[in-house]
Amino acid sequence: MTDPKAPVELLVCTTCRAGAPTDQEGPRPGTQLFEALQGCKLPDNVTLRGVECFSNCDFGCSITLRGGSDRWTYVYGQFTGSKDADLIADGASKYAATPDGLVPWRERSTHFRKNCIARIPPQEIPE
Amino acid sequence: MTDPKAPVELLVCTTCRAGAPTDQEGPRPGTQLFEALQGCKLPDNVTLRGVECFSNCDFGCSITLRGGSDRWTYVYGQFTGSKDADLIADGASKYAATPDGLVPWRERSTHFRKNCIARIPPQEIPE
Repeated sequence: MTDPKAPVELLVCTTCRAGAPTDQEGPRPGTQLFEALQGCKLPDNVTLRGVECFSNCDFGCSITLRGGSDRWTYVYGQFTGSKDADLIADGASKYAATPDGLVPWRERSTHFRKNCIARIPPQEIPE
Repeated sequence: MTDPKAPVELLVCTTCRAGAPTDQEGPRPGTQLFEALQGCKLPDNVTLRGVECFSNCDFGCSITLRGGSDRWTYVYGQFTGSKDADLIADGASKYAATPDGLVPWRERSTHFRKNCIARIPPQEIPE
């Protein structure tokens, strides 16, 4: 039933300031991260999308991984901007290769292990 | 298109210890909260479900509100257990009355205003 090729969305909060002052000029860290991810190699089943505000403003730049009726949704935070694009692309690739969104602990990067903000079960909650 | 009567799920993390010691006996605070919510009046379009671990363990008892293709999903935290059941039932009722999950700020309780862990856009992300 579960399909490891089901479409995945990588959502990036583009309005995040990552703690920078409100009068700082130029694109915000969240937007810089989004733009850097546009240059990264992502699996064919991953779509990158920008979103305005995850309401997770105290925990740095944030992303959400979701997709497919059988996958858990994950929110990760504490990214600092464009320099974390490769780290996120790696995590998104591992997530997109699973049927249920559960990447084995040993395969997760240290950042993903330490900065999971929340996870939400799939529509059909596993027993 | 949007339907304020679309089904809503109120998910409660039943494994939450809310900072209590691991050797404490009896049901965990998350389970106590879930059981207290079973006794609360909820709108007809809200289904209460227990879930094991939202990975939001540093921020107390947590709930998720989701449902309908047009609603934002919200994760709220820092609940302390069964005594917050009415507060959560109130927040869930307001959420379930909206077509998009966006409860006006002035209608949100102080706890909901201050303890939003994250929000995730609906499947069809609004422009």
